[in-house]
Order: sequence, then structure tokens, then C-alpha cells
Amino acid sequence: MNKLVLYVGNKNYSSWSLRPWLALQACGIPFEDVVIPFDFAAGNPKLKAVSPTGRVPALHHGDIRVWESLAIIEYAAELYPEAGLWPKDPEERSRARSYSMEMLSGFRALRNACPMNIRRKKAGVPLQEGVAADIDRIETIWREAVARSGGPFLFGDFSAADAMFAPVVVRFEVYDLTRNPTSLEYMDAVKTHPAFRTWQEAALAEPWIVPEDEV
Amino acid sequence: MNKLVLYVGNKNYSSWSLRPWLALQACGIPFEDVVIPFDFAAGNPKLKAVSPTGRVPALHHGDIRVWESLAIIEYAAELYPEAGLWPKDPEERSRARSYSMEMLSGFRALRNACPMNIRRKKAGVPLQEGVAADIDRIETIWREAVARSGGPFLFGDFSAADAMFAPVVVRFEVYDLTRNPTSLEYMDAVKTHPAFRTWQEAALAEPWIVPEDEV
Repeated sequence: MNKLVLYVGNKNYSSWSLRPWLALQACGIPFEDVVIPFDFAAGNPKLKAVSPTGRVPALHHGDIRVWESLAIIEYAAELYPEAGLWPKDPEERSRARSYSMEMLSGFRALRNACPMNIRRKKAGVPLQEGVAADIDRIETIWREAVARSGGPFLFGDFSAADAMFAPVVVRFEVYDLTRNPTSLEYMDAVKTHPAFRTWQEAALAEPWIVPEDEV
Repeated sequence: MNKLVLYVGNKNYSSWSLRPWLALQACGIPFEDVVIPFDFAAGNPKLKAVSPTGRVPALHHGDIRVWESLAIIEYAAELYPEAGLWPKDPEERSRARSYSMEMLSGFRALRNACPMNIRRKKAGVPLQEGVAADIDRIETIWREAVARSGGPFLFGDFSAADAMFAPVVVRFEVYDLTRNPTSLEYMDAVKTHPAFRTWQEAALAEPWIVPEDEV
């Protein structure tokens, strides 16, 4: 079988790349990753060569190209149905997808105000309009899901839904966005997962600084 | 089996509602729909009662709640695997999902500048920054997909990907955004599909006017 090769951006900043990388890694799916650092000055021509949209993440599997974080996860879930990327129960799986699609399409205020920046020193920022509502909805999701599943992750074991929310966990952490004990406990489960730690170590070792994402 | 009940917003304006409605209807999946008109003055409390996010679309299936347009489509695709919501071939299916996720997460400039408005009299508008790039990417997707499949739809027969792009087809039409023959031919296939026509007739019969969406 052809190898899965996942092209990702800077591990310190690329929230969209973290999602499929973490999902595959945490669920034990074999793949190689290739980092293509952002080049904000002129766009990176290497990106256009690996991805139809010129954006990462992009997955190569032989001649097959898959792009967009959640489409990559769905592809891997079909290829490795036993890996547990999605919950086995149909109702829980539909909830996991609903939450994941909320993440994919929404929370713009938070995402714009607080770019993912793994190495950032923990400190609050003045929060613009809309960010409080985003934080509130995210904490509602975490509370609701962990109450149903019993934790430690949104659907019990680590799943694609946790991977979709991992960049937000980083934001909550480094911008000091919550004091809620349930949220902090969930965030801790994500932050101490071996797959997350592997990504984090690689992020901390990166030399590149992207001024636009330093808030 | 419990009935599928799909809660949607105003058919004239609710682009997010059109997507799953059209996918289910065009693929012959039995469901009932319930229209909950927007009430921009104060938010509509009925929305909060049917959807965890207070937004439509939302699908009820017995006690199960599914929300977000594409999560609803995935749920229906699992429930009716033979309905052909997604292409059968794994590579084509992964492309259909990649395009659909692009639609779900992107094209903000176009979507903000040109709200879906089915009854709008066809006429151009001055286009803000970013809209041209969105139009260009969408036309690239349509051209690429139709060339691979042979048309008339993105993956040959009507699929979830066409449903995800249907609101954009409406925008291209009523804001007069293209002269490209391939695009016009694809748009025509969507506009003349019986499922789309059924939605359109219902939209045109609606009495409600939402000033924010009249551009």
C-alpha cells in the first residue's frame, strides 16, 4: 500500500495542519509528515505544488490528493475504519461531526483575535467583540460532550473531534481564556496526550517567526 | 423507523439550509421539512428549541439531533448508503469532501458580499476585495470536476458536493458573476434539477423580507 504523506505548515502556527496530524498520530495511523514553512512575503510556491488550493494541510496517497483538514480525517477514517477516528456509535459519531463542522466553519472572532502560537508566553489579551460568545459556545460543547462521555476526551477516547478542537485548546492556554475547571481538565487531557506533546516539541524547535501571528 | 425532520430557515435566504435539503431531496431520501423564518429583531426562540446552536439547519431523527449542513449530509449518507449522496469511488469521494469542506470553511468574501437571495432580480454589484479570488477558485473547482466526471454535475450524477455549491450557483446567477460557458452550463444543470426547482418555488412564495440580505 502507498504511504500516506501529510504536508503541514509551521507546527508553531498552523492550526489547520495540527488537526489532521494529531488525529492520525493519536489514532495510530502510519504516515510521514513534511513541513513546508509559511512564506508570507510572496506565498510559498512549494505549497501550490503539493496542494490544489495552495494551502496546507494536504494529504498525498499515491496519486490521490486530499485537502482541507476534515476531508483528510474522513479519508483516513475510511482507510483505517478500526483506528477509531470517529466514535463507533452512530449518534455519538453524528455529534462528533456536528461539533467538528462547527469548528471548521465558525469561531472566526476567536480565531482572528488569537492566532495559534504554541510557543507564546501565557498572557491575556483584550478581547474583541464576538470572542466571548465563541469562548462560551466552545466551553458549552466541551462541558456537554465530557458529561455525556465521562471524559477524559470529548467522546471518551481521543477522537477526530478532539483533534479538531486542539488548536483552540492551545489558544485557551496561551491567551489565558478560561478559569472553568471542566475546561481546564479537558485542556489538560489534550495537552498531556503523547501525540500532542510530539507536535509541541517540534513546534518549539522551529526557528521561524511569523510577525502577523504574534499577538 | 423514525422520520427525518429537517428544520430550515427562509428558503429565499438560508443558504446553509438549502445544502442538506437539496442533498436529501435530490437523492430521494424521505424527510419532512419545517421552515422557521428568521427573526433578526430578537433572534427566534424557536431556533434554540430545535438546534443546539440556535441556528438552522438542524435534523431531528427520533431523539437524535444533528446540526451543521455537512454533518447532516454525512448522517443521511450513513443512514442511506445506497442513495448516492457521495460518489462511490474512494478517490472521487475524497475530492467531493475536499471541495465541500472548502465551501464549508471558506469563500467568506463572496458570501458576505453577495448574500443568497433567490428572488433577487439579476444584476451585478460592485465587488469588494477578495471576491474575485473566490469566484476564480469556485470556477476552477467546477471546471476541474466537470472535466473529470464528464458532467452534468461535479461528480457525474447529482451528489452532496453539488448541494454544497448550490447556494453559490444562486449567487453567481442573481449577481451576474460569470460569463464562463463551462460555469453557465454547470449552473444550468443545478438550476433545472427538479429538487432545486421545488425549493425555488417555495422560496418565491415566501412573504418575508430580510433587509440585511437585500444587496
